[in-house]
Amino acid sequence: MGSARRSSLTTLISQTILGGESKAAYMFDRIEIMVILASVAAVMLESIEEINAQHQDLLYGLEWGFTILFTIEYILRLYCSRRRLQYARSFFGVVDLVSVVPTYISILLPGAQALIIIRLLRIIRVFRVFKLVKFSAASTKIWEALVLARPKITVFLVTVLALVTVLGSLMYLVEGADHGFDSIPRSIYWAIVTLTTVGYGDIAPVTPAGQFIAAIVMIIGYGIIAVPTGIVTAEMTFLEGLAKEQSGRAEGPVGCKCGDTVHSAEARYCKSCGSPLFRRDSYDFSGG
Amino acid sequence: MGSARRSSLTTLISQTILGGESKAAYMFDRIEIMVILASVAAVMLESIEEINAQHQDLLYGLEWGFTILFTIEYILRLYCSRRRLQYARSFFGVVDLVSVVPTYISILLPGAQALIIIRLLRIIRVFRVFKLVKFSAASTKIWEALVLARPKITVFLVTVLALVTVLGSLMYLVEGADHGFDSIPRSIYWAIVTLTTVGYGDIAPVTPAGQFIAAIVMIIGYGIIAVPTGIVTAEMTFLEGLAKEQSGRAEGPVGCKCGDTVHSAEARYCKSCGSPLFRRDSYDFSGG
Amino acid sequence: MGSARRSSLTTLISQTILGGESKAAYMFDRIEIMVILASVAAVMLESIEEINAQHQDLLYGLEWGFTILFTIEYILRLYCSRRRLQYARSFFGVVDLVSVVPTYISILLPGAQALIIIRLLRIIRVFRVFKLVKFSAASTKIWEALVLARPKITVFLVTVLALVTVLGSLMYLVEGADHGFDSIPRSIYWAIVTLTTVGYGDIAPVTPAGQFIAAIVMIIGYGIIAVPTGIVTAEMTFLEGLAKEQSGRAEGPVGCKCGDTVHSAEARYCKSCGSPLFRRDSYDFSGG
Amino acid sequence: MGSARRSSLTTLISQTILGGESKAAYMFDRIEIMVILASVAAVMLESIEEINAQHQDLLYGLEWGFTILFTIEYILRLYCSRRRLQYARSFFGVVDLVSVVPTYISILLPGAQALIIIRLLRIIRVFRVFKLVKFSAASTKIWEALVLARPKITVFLVTVLALVTVLGSLMYLVEGADHGFDSIPRSIYWAIVTLTTVGYGDIAPVTPAGQFIAAIVMIIGYGIIAVPTGIVTAEMTFLEGLAKEQSGRAEGPVGCKCGDTVHSAEARYCKSCGSPLFRRDSYDFSGG
Repeated sequence: MGSARRSSLTTLISQTILGGESKAAYMFDRIEIMVILASVAAVMLESIEEINAQHQDLLYGLEWGFTILFTIEYILRLYCSRRRLQYARSFFGVVDLVSVVPTYISILLPGAQALIIIRLLRIIRVFRVFKLVKFSAASTKIWEALVLARPKITVFLVTVLALVTVLGSLMYLVEGADHGFDSIPRSIYWAIVTLTTVGYGDIAPVTPAGQFIAAIVMIIGYGIIAVPTGIVTAEMTFLEGLAKEQSGRAEGPVGCKCGDTVHSAEARYCKSCGSPLFRRDSYDFSGG
Repeated sequence: MGSARRSSLTTLISQTILGGESKAAYMFDRIEIMVILASVAAVMLESIEEINAQHQDLLYGLEWGFTILFTIEYILRLYCSRRRLQYARSFFGVVDLVSVVPTYISILLPGAQALIIIRLLRIIRVFRVFKLVKFSAASTKIWEALVLARPKITVFLVTVLALVTVLGSLMYLVEGADHGFDSIPRSIYWAIVTLTTVGYGDIAPVTPAGQFIAAIVMIIGYGIIAVPTGIVTAEMTFLEGLAKEQSGRAEGPVGCKCGDTVHSAEARYCKSCGSPLFRRDSYDFSGG
Repeated sequence: MGSARRSSLTTLISQTILGGESKAAYMFDRIEIMVILASVAAVMLESIEEINAQHQDLLYGLEWGFTILFTIEYILRLYCSRRRLQYARSFFGVVDLVSVVPTYISILLPGAQALIIIRLLRIIRVFRVFKLVKFSAASTKIWEALVLARPKITVFLVTVLALVTVLGSLMYLVEGADHGFDSIPRSIYWAIVTLTTVGYGDIAPVTPAGQFIAAIVMIIGYGIIAVPTGIVTAEMTFLEGLAKEQSGRAEGPVGCKCGDTVHSAEARYCKSCGSPLFRRDSYDFSGG
Repeated sequence: MGSARRSSLTTLISQTILGGESKAAYMFDRIEIMVILASVAAVMLESIEEINAQHQDLLYGLEWGFTILFTIEYILRLYCSRRRLQYARSFFGVVDLVSVVPTYISILLPGAQALIIIRLLRIIRVFRVFKLVKFSAASTKIWEALVLARPKITVFLVTVLALVTVLGSLMYLVEGADHGFDSIPRSIYWAIVTLTTVGYGDIAPVTPAGQFIAAIVMIIGYGIIAVPTGIVTAEMTFLEGLAKEQSGRAEGPVGCKCGDTVHSAEARYCKSCGSPLFRRDSYDFSGG
């Protein structure tokens, strides 16, 4: 087996697995997402008692099939990486390893329930698809907006947590253990259920005073949702404006399907045929 | 029957049914919406056992009346269309056909419950009214904003689905089947109920650890609603700015009721009398 | 009684009641709001059986006291108005009349429960305070944004109503009468409860298929809240920008407490002392 | 003990406690937050009956430990302040005092339940950390946006309260005491639970007419959440734009880690290395 031939095979596998722009890479991504979702579905079905009782052997076989597939993929990724240690230590490297280890451990420790949740962490691998060009800009923008908004969100969260602590303990005094508010932590749990407008109804105020305080908590919760929304929206509008400016300065004319290539920097639609113009941060609407 | 006379009748019907700007077309649209809503109401009333038991014959008669009306309309639309096959294959062409077929099928298959839902798809025909000038710009703008936001919304949805999978299965381990979390899919259902702040309370955590995780899920759900809102708002603000720019460049002076016709491009209110100015993307407030 | 003297008394009452800028007018508004709230509170207390049983005479007396006060006010308003018929026909004129009539009718028709709700319409009179300078700009802006957003909101509402009709009737077929979905209208009620994220839990899906559809309804409801929010926010941002432009053109320098009167048009804070600058659309933060 | 030596010790304590920029001040803030959270956790654990029964002595000891720590801190703050009376009367001065007093009172009045909630007001002391540079700009911006939005929020709140009053009393008539709507205040409580989309389900409409009104309340509640969100977002976008303008005018070039110091006023990312640029209103992402 010549070194050149082996190297070319490695290159081919790298480009396919590590996300090039070839057709094979595109197919590989599609198939991988389907396999991941199928393996997650199998773990879920296993947790339904009736199905597990009836199809135990099938699900057991599937689980091992998926594990072997993911193990091969992990070895190939490790083998193809230029910096193997860096991959093994990276976020997705750890996730890839964690996706297969629980099945091997289950031979040694058969009844370990907690392994199920670890196996379900496989779903995180779906996010690798966000590295693709198609969603890269979109996820970057959401992330940037959240990073810019972080100090404001922290201030908001601390305020909300202090609020539910005070309001929850107030309800503990007003309603008391007879109506389900049997400790301050449980009353704070009620305050969170109410403030976030979830409203299970498992614990609900009964006395007029309690219902009055609850109504105030609800109106506060209904109103202050405006704050995080305002924060994130303001940052996103800011980034949108920034992107508009930058694309104007840096990019120059953009072509359209109709052949018209001269558009002003802000143009999002072709002035000749009216179809949308796509720039760096845009998205291919033609695909599924 | 002369060809000219027939043609003029066809033209009249076309203009009325296919949505011209005549008074007849306006009346036809109003009446059609009322007939659609009445037929939907009849199907609904049929599903209420007491009413169905008492008024079975009336409802049966009404159903056939509506079906015959819609059949006539369908034949007329088909007859008036310039490209008949294209209409028959179009979205609304299929909806129009589907609106009448179930009643005819019900003669052959009397007890088919599933036909009810197909008959209710008639409600989709109400959307034809959005083709009218009045709502056309509004629905186009909402649609454009959602199309521009699509990659970001996809990223958000995938993240939410991965989140509920992990959090749901965590709760399956923590609370277990004794407290209603009897399988991973049902626990994920609970996580969706909680994250979206619906909060039925049919399944609710009972243990302190479960209530702690639930509180985290609620605060996440309460907070990340800001993300889709921010995405859509940023796109709508962007489109609003774009429309402002375009109307400024392309349109020139706009008249007002008071007779003042010289307004700056951004003006939304008449500088002489203060009443709103309406442009291309605007709306006639005078109508009901 | 001289005409001049009478006229001057009328003027004084007019300025006080109809909302001038005198201290008396300010006091009158404050007192009126308190009287309105007290009268609403009295009606509410009357509806609580134990309180009504114990304090029937007091509440009966209070009700007649408030009614006589409001009757005097109504007569004074009618008397002071320049165009009496116009006032009597205006929105607030009708509300003022409706606030007192039910009590007089209750002598003739003692047991009429429905009169309670009519008496509570008094609360609408609180909105007269929004005519004051303090809140006038704020309520105008909210109203303008909603008017501009009306066609989009109509499109959104029609879409939501069609959606709950189709999804509700789908659930009627999937879950059926055994699980509470006993008619299409009730299933649509469930769909509205779920889509709006209210989630009472009085009707909740039990079958896996039903819970799957419910999860989709929830995620739709959680996501599309972004649409009305985006619509209203975009209009408000637009109006905010407009106000900024207009105040820049029309107003010129604005004074500050510190004595610095030369500020750029966009300035919201004094460049010398940093305290906020208040313009036409601003608000007096000093008041309670 | 020389005056100079004492003064230098005072200065050291001042800089540490009152929030200078030394490493000691940074450590002190971190430790204080942890102590506050620990003391709040102890009060919470005390309210859980089983834990209190088992560890009463430990919790009693902890409570006194925290109280003595906070007392020492209060005395030091008072001692170090330049204007002692001003501190004692300030918001945080009162909070600091209120944090320790209940424990001393509990010797005199052993069973006073209400003291628990007062002790929990300690959590407010966590907000002192927002005075730090790190969160100062963020909390100022949120506060400014809310202050600017205050008149609009007041208009919105009054409208919501009038709406729930009218809708709640309507439901009182329609559903009546048999279905839980046994007084107008309780029906208004239901209307608030529904309008804010909390939806406990403790009181829920049963009659078709009641469910129809409830559906309208839900759709109103689902829709008008857009109003406060729009208000706050518009103000935040406005302030964001203002900050951008001001930083452009006032600040000049900003340095980057990579050494490139010439950036345009709007730039948020270094044009040489792409890392974010931080200005006055920015945040140090490097810290935990």
